[in-house]
Amino acid sequence: MPIVTVKMLEGRTDEQKRELVEKVTEAVTSTTQAPADRVSVVIEEMKPENFGKAGVRASDEV
Amino acid sequence: MPIVTVKMLEGRTDEQKRELVEKVTEAVTSTTQAPADRVSVVIEEMKPENFGKAGVRASDEV
Amino acid sequence: MPIVTVKMLEGRTDEQKRELVEKVTEAVTSTTQAPADRVSVVIEEMKPENFGKAGVRASDEV
Amino acid sequence: MPIVTVKMLEGRTDEQKRELVEKVTEAVTSTTQAPADRVSVVIEEMKPENFGKAGVRASDEV
Amino acid sequence: MPIVTVKMLEGRTDEQKRELVEKVTEAVTSTTQAPADRVSVVIEEMKPENFGKAGVRASDEV
Amino acid sequence: MPIVTVKMLEGRTDEQKRELVEKVTEAVTSTTQAPADRVSVVIEEMKPENFGKAGVRASDEV
Repeated sequence: MPIVTVKMLEGRTDEQKRELVEKVTEAVTSTTQAPADRVSVVIEEMKPENFGKAGVRASDEV
Repeated sequence: MPIVTVKMLEGRTDEQKRELVEKVTEAVTSTTQAPADRVSVVIEEMKPENFGKAGVRASDEV
Repeated sequence: MPIVTVKMLEGRTDEQKRELVEKVTEAVTSTTQAPADRVSVVIEEMKPENFGKAGVRASDEV
Repeated sequence: MPIVTVKMLEGRTDEQKRELVEKVTEAVTSTTQAPADRVSVVIEEMKPENFGKAGVRASDEV
Repeated sequence: MPIVTVKMLEGRTDEQKRELVEKVTEAVTSTTQAPADRVSVVIEEMKPENFGKAGVRASDEV
Repeated sequence: MPIVTVKMLEGRTDEQKRELVEKVTEAVTSTTQAPADRVSVVIEEMKPENFGKAGVRASDEV
């Protein structure tokens, strides 16, 4: 039942995303004792023009 | 004011999504007495490579 | 796998929340053909001072 | 550390989104005293067929 | 219809939260031209033990 | 910048939550190469009466 959402900038490879789901699931099961088959992981990829820090978007950084 | 978000794998037809919004709104209004015009429904479609269960992504299932 | 989140003001009874989960799950399964045991529903209750519409919080409405 | 998410229908210009991130960050820092470099803003754009109000999707409105 | 969610550490005063909703709504309407009565703002307050940066929770910072 | 949200039933100890933040951050940095100080982890604890699977809430399971 733990539902994990990872929001990150787009651009990672398919292999990186495969490993991310695997390793995040391990991190959750090993620390919360939730069974792995109850853990969902959702990756939400953001475009640089849709993410900003300190008022400046990633797409506008010089 | 109830704000409903439905995250699901991409691939449903436009007609299925139309019905989903209608039926979910009915379910919320009939049980919470919130007026229908206050209910928002957001559908968030996920790519198979961005959703995993038990550490394995939908795109990697055999 | 559909993950449904319902954000609404606090104050509904336990019975209303029980029915909400049941009816929303039915709405999702009947329109998307997702099996019921794959559907998760999360209720997130908001305090009136933490929700605003048109710039005015529910707790400040006269 | 304030994390702001803005879900809105797709269609705004790049300039509108640039200003949105800037002005929302200012609004958060001026009212919560959080330092600007701790404020993240995420824009999530919705397709009209994936957003509904009162049971009717934006794409089905006549 | 823009739905804004602000996740931040608990501890702000009621007055700060009132102003936050007001100013964030202004920021959204002035940059996206969405009418104010379509803008929802949700504040989600986090306990220090439930938020971490660089692997360390706010409650564990020395 | 990766923002991770973990929604899970309430009831874990403070130590479990400390380790969860640490291990999830490691999982994200090791697979995405995002620097640790850019990774935020938010834990959202759910009451059993606010989470349901297959139409039945955790609080109603027999």
